[in-house]
Amino acid sequence: MKVGIIGASGYSGVELFRILNNHPNIEKCMLYSSSEVDNSYSRTFPHLNCISDHSLKKIEINDLSESLDVLFLATPPGVSASLTPALFPSRLKIIDLSGDLRLKKNSDYEQWYKRQTADEEILQSAVYGLPELNYKQIEHAKLIANPGCFPTASILGLAPITKESLIDEQSIIVDAKSGVSGAGRKASAVTSYAEINENLKIYKVNEHQHIPEIEQALHSLNDQINTITFSTHLIPMTRGIMATIYVKLVHEISTERLLDCYRTFYEHSPFVRIRNMNEFPSTKEVYGSNYCDIGLKVDERTGRVTIVSVIDNLMKGAAGQAVQNFNIMHGLNETTSLHTAPIFP
Amino acid sequence: MKVGIIGASGYSGVELFRILNNHPNIEKCMLYSSSEVDNSYSRTFPHLNCISDHSLKKIEINDLSESLDVLFLATPPGVSASLTPALFPSRLKIIDLSGDLRLKKNSDYEQWYKRQTADEEILQSAVYGLPELNYKQIEHAKLIANPGCFPTASILGLAPITKESLIDEQSIIVDAKSGVSGAGRKASAVTSYAEINENLKIYKVNEHQHIPEIEQALHSLNDQINTITFSTHLIPMTRGIMATIYVKLVHEISTERLLDCYRTFYEHSPFVRIRNMNEFPSTKEVYGSNYCDIGLKVDERTGRVTIVSVIDNLMKGAAGQAVQNFNIMHGLNETTSLHTAPIFP
Amino acid sequence: MKVGIIGASGYSGVELFRILNNHPNIEKCMLYSSSEVDNSYSRTFPHLNCISDHSLKKIEINDLSESLDVLFLATPPGVSASLTPALFPSRLKIIDLSGDLRLKKNSDYEQWYKRQTADEEILQSAVYGLPELNYKQIEHAKLIANPGCFPTASILGLAPITKESLIDEQSIIVDAKSGVSGAGRKASAVTSYAEINENLKIYKVNEHQHIPEIEQALHSLNDQINTITFSTHLIPMTRGIMATIYVKLVHEISTERLLDCYRTFYEHSPFVRIRNMNEFPSTKEVYGSNYCDIGLKVDERTGRVTIVSVIDNLMKGAAGQAVQNFNIMHGLNETTSLHTAPIFP
Amino acid sequence: MKVGIIGASGYSGVELFRILNNHPNIEKCMLYSSSEVDNSYSRTFPHLNCISDHSLKKIEINDLSESLDVLFLATPPGVSASLTPALFPSRLKIIDLSGDLRLKKNSDYEQWYKRQTADEEILQSAVYGLPELNYKQIEHAKLIANPGCFPTASILGLAPITKESLIDEQSIIVDAKSGVSGAGRKASAVTSYAEINENLKIYKVNEHQHIPEIEQALHSLNDQINTITFSTHLIPMTRGIMATIYVKLVHEISTERLLDCYRTFYEHSPFVRIRNMNEFPSTKEVYGSNYCDIGLKVDERTGRVTIVSVIDNLMKGAAGQAVQNFNIMHGLNETTSLHTAPIFP
Repeated sequence: MKVGIIGASGYSGVELFRILNNHPNIEKCMLYSSSEVDNSYSRTFPHLNCISDHSLKKIEINDLSESLDVLFLATPPGVSASLTPALFPSRLKIIDLSGDLRLKKNSDYEQWYKRQTADEEILQSAVYGLPELNYKQIEHAKLIANPGCFPTASILGLAPITKESLIDEQSIIVDAKSGVSGAGRKASAVTSYAEINENLKIYKVNEHQHIPEIEQALHSLNDQINTITFSTHLIPMTRGIMATIYVKLVHEISTERLLDCYRTFYEHSPFVRIRNMNEFPSTKEVYGSNYCDIGLKVDERTGRVTIVSVIDNLMKGAAGQAVQNFNIMHGLNETTSLHTAPIFP
Repeated sequence: MKVGIIGASGYSGVELFRILNNHPNIEKCMLYSSSEVDNSYSRTFPHLNCISDHSLKKIEINDLSESLDVLFLATPPGVSASLTPALFPSRLKIIDLSGDLRLKKNSDYEQWYKRQTADEEILQSAVYGLPELNYKQIEHAKLIANPGCFPTASILGLAPITKESLIDEQSIIVDAKSGVSGAGRKASAVTSYAEINENLKIYKVNEHQHIPEIEQALHSLNDQINTITFSTHLIPMTRGIMATIYVKLVHEISTERLLDCYRTFYEHSPFVRIRNMNEFPSTKEVYGSNYCDIGLKVDERTGRVTIVSVIDNLMKGAAGQAVQNFNIMHGLNETTSLHTAPIFP
Repeated sequence: MKVGIIGASGYSGVELFRILNNHPNIEKCMLYSSSEVDNSYSRTFPHLNCISDHSLKKIEINDLSESLDVLFLATPPGVSASLTPALFPSRLKIIDLSGDLRLKKNSDYEQWYKRQTADEEILQSAVYGLPELNYKQIEHAKLIANPGCFPTASILGLAPITKESLIDEQSIIVDAKSGVSGAGRKASAVTSYAEINENLKIYKVNEHQHIPEIEQALHSLNDQINTITFSTHLIPMTRGIMATIYVKLVHEISTERLLDCYRTFYEHSPFVRIRNMNEFPSTKEVYGSNYCDIGLKVDERTGRVTIVSVIDNLMKGAAGQAVQNFNIMHGLNETTSLHTAPIFP
Repeated sequence: MKVGIIGASGYSGVELFRILNNHPNIEKCMLYSSSEVDNSYSRTFPHLNCISDHSLKKIEINDLSESLDVLFLATPPGVSASLTPALFPSRLKIIDLSGDLRLKKNSDYEQWYKRQTADEEILQSAVYGLPELNYKQIEHAKLIANPGCFPTASILGLAPITKESLIDEQSIIVDAKSGVSGAGRKASAVTSYAEINENLKIYKVNEHQHIPEIEQALHSLNDQINTITFSTHLIPMTRGIMATIYVKLVHEISTERLLDCYRTFYEHSPFVRIRNMNEFPSTKEVYGSNYCDIGLKVDERTGRVTIVSVIDNLMKGAAGQAVQNFNIMHGLNETTSLHTAPIFP
């Protein structure tokens, strides 16, 4: 197969390249960028010296749909919404890593992203690419809305317990923490080293554009869920997301039984690892890998359960999950090119 | 005045020294350590070359009570409980930075610390040294139980809203994050650089010994509060604590009015800084200082308020607060030797 | 005295403010910025909430010379060169933290800074403000060229051994390492967190503009010294500079005797701390302070000596040294407002 | 093939496992540890949950030589010296990652390691496993002394220029910098997070045990080389080594010609990447990979050349190089299981 990456000069783009470059079913990988046209890719990313001899191409819509089988969009908000109308009619399959096609309600996108929403038909035909919930639809999808990093960690952490109606649906609180690579590669005073190092910040309190995405997915699992409380913190590290989740139980249930319920739910999900009693995952334990690790514990004193869900934001939170979707769409084993162990330490 | 520090070879001990060394009312500061007796202090802490010519002394109970006016105990759990019975009868004033004398109910200490509790009389005469709540008692105290780092940030973040009964008392969730210096100076595989760097961990879920301390203080402000949910995360940074607090409001109230309520509550507290609308503090904004900075925001969608409270764990969370108590106990301005600005960046 | 800071919105500017705000001889401190005129200073730097109620003023040359006694210029290259001609004729004393006035040979500035040099008369009247070498001239100076961060560490590390002609003058190699705050506060892809963290880079190999500054100072101590080899590395930390210096000895000398020679040389320099045999300073041991710590060791196998010199780049490498110069110029004790201990850990 | 790892609970051990677990020619990998016998490996390293179901075995000499084809020793100093006499007579091939078998002169080992040297016969039969220099001997080796991390970076950075006799042989200075994982996994106050973070230290000045190893290798390339000056610095990062090397040229040569000479020398070395003019590698550009990246620049002013050589200390500096040796010993392509791209960012 021939694939292309738009936005190859960004962090998600180069992570896609790392995975696709070793993928046994991919014959050719074209790289596109609007900001660094004609640059050698290994000049943009010197760690790719002797690995990539690509140069970054200009985006030409007609060429894309003719010469490629699959296109990955690793682009900032708004780009997919504007590119997809021209690409959608062709036979090209599209995996969109941006947030443009994730929210089914137009008004949600406009409210949270403060931008105009994508074309309605395209929006409705996009499949939300969270394989652990939507495997069947992904198999036959032509257009994938690849989930956001925070939603991936949060939804996987909450899916079993919300689906089984074990909780007070109004009680969900997600305290999320992220490494800095999630903010992308552009220069910014906010993400400069001296401002982030030895510092801890909260940001976008009650305003993060991933809130409606999480709510939409949870609502589809349990229609009593409408709103959640969600916060994001910037951690002085490069990769990694942790969602610490607090929910109120409606019935008593032991930690052990709840862990069993999670293990059953994710029985056929090779990238979700449920930890043992009294063990919680740390972000480095999934570094560079496509795993989502989950630990949890019931507190009898308060009737709440604390759930911890961790991912590598550039892998399961972006490029890894996109390739997982690619594999499923093409009838491949979903772990193809994704079975590498985390790097530790 | 002549003061002494037991546990001077630890991080809280050396932070006490940094403050007391410049204190205008202290004539002499003696340093004690059980692990490094007779060592030159500047060999233990080379940054004190040419600043300190102290050597670390052996702890001799009789000497202490005769030669000193005030003793700071910056010691691991159990030490204060065992030292205070011999010291308490003397005229010596004691400021204990450990957790030994904070919990008024013996059973709490035994349950959470898994150790034997301190002498009952001593325990009951210890004043909980949180000046923003207990200024009057501290003025006349002979023995101070200096608050823990997480409790300081959590209680200051919650005091106004709990005292005013604005919240559902069963809804309090504190998601706390801490730098690594809180774990002390001893060698440990858990806090080694390669395990902490580029990593994020949760620890002691529902088991942290600071939980009953926070509950005790909140209960004294509002007796409907009994239990809270509290988690602690280890952040790859050296100093700093952030408590992200979630509570359910019982009535609608605007962010602005709530901020006013906080400003009024802390009107006479020089170390609490309430941030403006839509501003939240980061930990580095209090680095090296005795400030506790608080920001908050009401979410109309969920009826919850998110409160963020940050401190430097070695200052307002330990040594700085101990000196603040020292100042108040001696009729000095509570900011004496503590008015330095945070170091940024 | 009334002082002003131009460039107050940068890192050296805010470090100047931190020191000057507590200075007993300063009655008023005005803050100027070209990029954030009329902003509240505590909005630019939230850690200064409740500490500063300044707003940033526009730079008006006439006002400056009339209303101030001393002006600090903490500005990017080129600004001092263009501002000083208008300011120099007035009674205003000026301390310039930029590199514009440090190099006495015009051609050096033009070659290394790739800019037009400052006015010749102003240049020649500027005193190079390294108090450990030029105390007497600083006392009577009207205009100070405050040394660069790398030159401060390098020159102090080399001064005794070069002055005493103990070394092969062609053998000097300085391998310098710096924290990221030296790059200033502006947004840049090069200093963004994800590019710096868990990374180590060399930069400006043989091209750093501090090379001629070090050579000029060493040449003034020993006119056989003309060129040195100098490299700079970017370390994943915020503050701190280390210069690791390698020189060839011309005669055998023991480590101990060489340490004595350094101690004698710096006998009257309160901010230089010479370490003991077999001890080397680390950057954190001077964090937030104005110290320069030096350790060294002779290698009998190779006839070379390894000298390690560390400073805090924002203190002894910029703002701290500027205030030290200010103190000396005004007949004050040179440690005024600068005697605080390093913060550790 | 069946292979075993002694020291599997250390950082080099787990990095070996990461590579060998995906190696197409390895059928079984046994894991041994003296400190964590019978532990599940995924409890020792939770990032291996669902990847490894190994338990750590006790070391039984007889079993090893019977059941395995190749044994990797990832052990502290002294262990290989004591284990090899019993293992050497068997048909087992051994790759020793420790320093025990690298120095051919007994007296060197005793002087620098302060321990008793290994058996003379074993020592002399060990091949120094630096494939870029010793490919032929490695092909037929039964026992490999896998190079140290600093020697790998230093020797590869110096080999072409020393072999070609382009330099003053007495002028070699290596200023080395390392991440903290090189210190291993054991708890230590020196490598605890709060002591390393935001800090920069030099250590083992003129005393590092890798000095004689580098000198031995350089001497074998150019017998005029006897001693070098070598320093090591601890950088606040987990992985990565940079050797910044300074040498005096004996003749004028341009940077370009020197780069050509390096490119020719490493023409057949797939893991050495020579950078272009004016480009220098950073450590993150080889993170998680087996590459050694080299950049260099001649300084006409001083007649010196600055060479920068970077590796990932756990890969090309330990486990990766060991597997490269394993591949060569078994007639496999030397990049087998090692062709993954660096992880960035």
